[in-house]
Amino acid sequence: MIRILYLLVKPDSMTQEQFEKECVVHFQMSDGMPGLHKYEVRLVDRNPTDTHVPYLDVGRIDAIGECWFESEAAYQVYMDSDIRKAWFEHGKYFIGKLKPFVTKDVV
Amino acid sequence: MIRILYLLVKPDSMTQEQFEKECVVHFQMSDGMPGLHKYEVRLVDRNPTDTHVPYLDVGRIDAIGECWFESEAAYQVYMDSDIRKAWFEHGKYFIGKLKPFVTKDVV
Repeated sequence: MIRILYLLVKPDSMTQEQFEKECVVHFQMSDGMPGLHKYEVRLVDRNPTDTHVPYLDVGRIDAIGECWFESEAAYQVYMDSDIRKAWFEHGKYFIGKLKPFVTKDVV
Repeated sequence: MIRILYLLVKPDSMTQEQFEKECVVHFQMSDGMPGLHKYEVRLVDRNPTDTHVPYLDVGRIDAIGECWFESEAAYQVYMDSDIRKAWFEHGKYFIGKLKPFVTKDVV
């Protein structure tokens, strides 16, 4: 399984309420997306700093997304899809900044 | 469900190979942890910067962890557990810096 995690920052000009609504729209738009096995987007609710190891400050993050793909072939289907392109256009509207991580399992 | 996502940075003094081994140990130690519904830890494999919206640079992140708890009561069981305390001690050994996000679902 290919998994890509995203840190999302809302545009400065957008209210928190509008951003939360657009996250829901983005989630709804993911339904039936070609090549995409699963999509999640969650809001950052709290940022605890009382960590048991030194705290890492990465600045304000407003939401966390994740995409799952079953294979490289499925990922290519996704990338080539016009529906995916429309989805990214919506992303350009409600995501101010984005940090992707392509991850791999440890076990 | 309570979900907490963590960005992990390895200690400067630790090799990548050792860090990857300790991630596996940390995952294995999570098995049967009181109050913990699920635990995941994944390595950051790639950091694509060709995003369709402005790129957010958060510096080097080496792994991403996540904890799931079924309720606040389960979380309290976890926090009070001696096994959990031993788990955090292992965390102090192999995690250089840590950024937690308590998230909430959008739908």
